Amino acid sequence: MAERVLVTLDGEVRDADAPLLHADDFGVLRGDGVFETLLVRDGRACALELHLARLAASAAAAQLPEPDRDDWRLAVDVALEKWGAEREGALRLVYTRGREGSDTPTAFLLVTPVAERVETARREGVSVVTLERGFSVDLARKAPWQLLGAKTLSYATNMAALRHAESVGADDVIYISSEGYVLEGPRSTVLIARGRTLVTPPPEQGILPGTTQQALFDLAGERDFAVRYEPLRPADLVVADGLWLISSVALAARVHTLDGHTLVSRVAEGDIENLVSEAVQAAS
Amino acid sequence: MAERVLVTLDGEVRDADAPLLHADDFGVLRGDGVFETLLVRDGRACALELHLARLAASAAAAQLPEPDRDDWRLAVDVALEKWGAEREGALRLVYTRGREGSDTPTAFLLVTPVAERVETARREGVSVVTLERGFSVDLARKAPWQLLGAKTLSYATNMAALRHAESVGADDVIYISSEGYVLEGPRSTVLIARGRTLVTPPPEQGILPGTTQQALFDLAGERDFAVRYEPLRPADLVVADGLWLISSVALAARVHTLDGHTLVSRVAEGDIENLVSEAVQAAS
Repeated sequence: MAERVLVTLDGEVRDADAPLLHADDFGVLRGDGVFETLLVRDGRACALELHLARLAASAAAAQLPEPDRDDWRLAVDVALEKWGAEREGALRLVYTRGREGSDTPTAFLLVTPVAERVETARREGVSVVTLERGFSVDLARKAPWQLLGAKTLSYATNMAALRHAESVGADDVIYISSEGYVLEGPRSTVLIARGRTLVTPPPEQGILPGTTQQALFDLAGERDFAVRYEPLRPADLVVADGLWLISSVALAARVHTLDGHTLVSRVAEGDIENLVSEAVQAAS
Repeated sequence: MAERVLVTLDGEVRDADAPLLHADDFGVLRGDGVFETLLVRDGRACALELHLARLAASAAAAQLPEPDRDDWRLAVDVALEKWGAEREGALRLVYTRGREGSDTPTAFLLVTPVAERVETARREGVSVVTLERGFSVDLARKAPWQLLGAKTLSYATNMAALRHAESVGADDVIYISSEGYVLEGPRSTVLIARGRTLVTPPPEQGILPGTTQQALFDLAGERDFAVRYEPLRPADLVVADGLWLISSVALAARVHTLDGHTLVSRVAEGDIENLVSEAVQAAS
């Protein structure tokens, strides 16, 4: 059982403690590339096909060559075999524009242990602050170069927002648009429950489509839940029967505090968490 | 004369064709780091102190450890010595958050030849399209986590904007705020001339302070130019006596076409270009 597993897209296992990227890789010089993070559980990569589809969509938005999904599937198998089935892991698929002056993307897979923060979020839930994202929900449609629906490596602002949250004693962030609509978390999709209806903001509002939320919506019907995409305001979060941040590795983190206010949850503890867990394991 | 020169912050010259960064460096996983690009001319790094000051400001905004400027100066000397004085180069200073789970930033310097695109822009000027940046000029003040005044490695959107420009037959971009104010280029500062007055938008509008524009403003007084920071609208660019994109390596690229309209320049050819060139070489 290795502490981290590094595999290049050719299926070769590499030493994770040896340098891999050149100094002139656009992945580092410009955050110019796309990525996915998946949960490894019981030796399987959860919702792999949903993630490969989003990787391809992100690559298309960033005008990177179309990823060869068969290559990625094979390399994922190598990484999973090497990681083993004894414990969970976080599997990153990283795909950059490659070195300056080259036409060959850089592509690798990295499995690392699930962060302690994630275990805590699953177990105890999270406190969240809303922060202004700065743009309108109309921007994605008007300005495709903003790459709003693509999961790029340019996450410096997301990281800064999370540090800001930490500095005010919160665990996570929900972004709000310039008109006051709920968007998403820096690394999660926002989900509320209203009785047996699960609601998330429409991806057309400049939001990254959530793979875990998709897997959840696919399964929810069979479990007697209705699902809906609907523009939400912060007040909708406060009066909901439950609020979660949905993500690939933490799965469902219940939000117990929003902007300092304790939220009352009217959904039985574990209901949504278990459903999300089941959903990503059932998803292909 | 090497094709590229790579030096780590400890002053060690590295093989630029050997991998340097680990797969789990936050510089690549999240574009989480800051950088500077300087012009190398006659064996000197132009306006080095202005760039080191901005590197420090960017690092502070991103909550990275304060860069040790003496270390950077020494490493710059090593890189310059290795590059030689025979030709120009572009010197990048790169400073990332380092590897996951480590407290040590990754820091290196890379000198590469000046891109052909840059030579063309200097010689022939550029055609530019305005693109919506999506946020208000007030955002930087209200939302420091947006890192608007920091030069981070998260440049995927800037690169996408430049690809969009290329797709419509333009060479470069000027971003416009949601209220319709002129902001900056993806890799440049906007400058206009009105008679003997040089005007650029105020950095408080969520713009990266331009090192080259600063060097220019410092020298301009001695050359009988007045200088001003002033909010600008696209119409101000069209009616100006001249419009340039100012940047560290291209220096001053005259904008000859804006959104398809040919601009009339009433400033003698080479006047501003020579002044900018002189300014960055005079700057410490």
